[in-house]
Amino acid sequence: MTAAPHPVIVLVRPQLGENIGKAARAMLNFGLTEMRLVAPRDGWPNPHAGPAASGADVVLANATVHGSLADAVADCTHIYATTVRKRGVTKPVVTPETAAGEIHARAGRSALVFGPERSGLETDDVALAHSILTVPINPEFGSLNLAQAVILCAYEWSKSVELASPPATELDPPAPHAELETLIAHFVRKLETAEYFDPPERTPATLRTLRGALTKAGWTSADIKMMHGILTAIERGPRPKG
Amino acid sequence: MTAAPHPVIVLVRPQLGENIGKAARAMLNFGLTEMRLVAPRDGWPNPHAGPAASGADVVLANATVHGSLADAVADCTHIYATTVRKRGVTKPVVTPETAAGEIHARAGRSALVFGPERSGLETDDVALAHSILTVPINPEFGSLNLAQAVILCAYEWSKSVELASPPATELDPPAPHAELETLIAHFVRKLETAEYFDPPERTPATLRTLRGALTKAGWTSADIKMMHGILTAIERGPRPKG
Repeated sequence: MTAAPHPVIVLVRPQLGENIGKAARAMLNFGLTEMRLVAPRDGWPNPHAGPAASGADVVLANATVHGSLADAVADCTHIYATTVRKRGVTKPVVTPETAAGEIHARAGRSALVFGPERSGLETDDVALAHSILTVPINPEFGSLNLAQAVILCAYEWSKSVELASPPATELDPPAPHAELETLIAHFVRKLETAEYFDPPERTPATLRTLRGALTKAGWTSADIKMMHGILTAIERGPRPKG
Repeated sequence: MTAAPHPVIVLVRPQLGENIGKAARAMLNFGLTEMRLVAPRDGWPNPHAGPAASGADVVLANATVHGSLADAVADCTHIYATTVRKRGVTKPVVTPETAAGEIHARAGRSALVFGPERSGLETDDVALAHSILTVPINPEFGSLNLAQAVILCAYEWSKSVELASPPATELDPPAPHAELETLIAHFVRKLETAEYFDPPERTPATLRTLRGALTKAGWTSADIKMMHGILTAIERGPRPKG
């Protein structure tokens, strides 16, 4: 059982080298390394790409340049055209999340295709695709730039990769229940001494509220030990001098 | 049945106006509009923010400025500190996806807190938070900028908008942050009186532990009111007879 190949990111007629660099940075953050460029406007390599990549130079160094989208995706088995334009579309429209799931489940290499910054993909580009990938966005303010569209797709893809799981932190567990009972009992002793339970008929309700708050707190053994110390210190007051 | 309030985005000591503008653009793409700024380095308003917002001016126009993170999140009931730094962390660590689900399910308003561009959040900022939010990222190349971190969180939040189940409104929400600060201050006053902080050089660590325990507790306004009463009663001791 082998994992599906990582998808390739195809930028069609990108305009600014800076945006190519930002896309590379977005990709590498989430473990994608294969970039393909179709007819970049200012040629390739582009001196503005490197600085914008913030260290993702390996992506730029390995980027390949192609004369057409068909050539760029020649080895790919499933092609997603990212676009917000939906008129006349007769292909399935998927979210980045759905696309990520499909890419992981599929044998063969997928391509995520992004259009030029201003105009987006042409109809002929979209015609090559099997699916339309659309990021669901605020209908009153849709303003995703190229690198942002790339990062959302790369992020969704990475979520399904094992290594992308967040590290489980070493959280101390809550204290065993007996320690909590001891703390509650300590509170009650101090409060009885202080004649806090007044009037007496309210005592059961007050105790329930106190127990509820201390139970909900989820304190560790160390927290509970600290609270014992605090109760003792406050009752005792200032240390005798001498 | 009402939906949970939209989360607020808090930028702590942001450096470049351009990045504040980009964060606003990222937010509005996914329907978030409430931005709060803590001590922005170059003051506010910042002439570089508007052009970078690409039309998300409404977010900038309504942004509020605060002197401290505690002030910025005073009305929030659950606070997420976004950070990749994990040493010594004793809070739950969640992904943007998990955080989004929690925010939708919760009564009360959540805050997503982002640190300065270069350095990220300080330990004292993180201490205010209930949870750490970490974007799972390529361990060999982690280079998310501020606006990218914001857009991934906003995107995840927006994904659940449609599907979100109604929040558990029958539960009392945790108290707004300002009430928690008041309780912490009350503990500290009582403990200073009792000369609990000894030796003095341990005081900052002790305060962090105390803040951690009280933050984790998730107490409601009623719980906090009870604790104020308990502190006062224990210090006072038995009521004078008469």
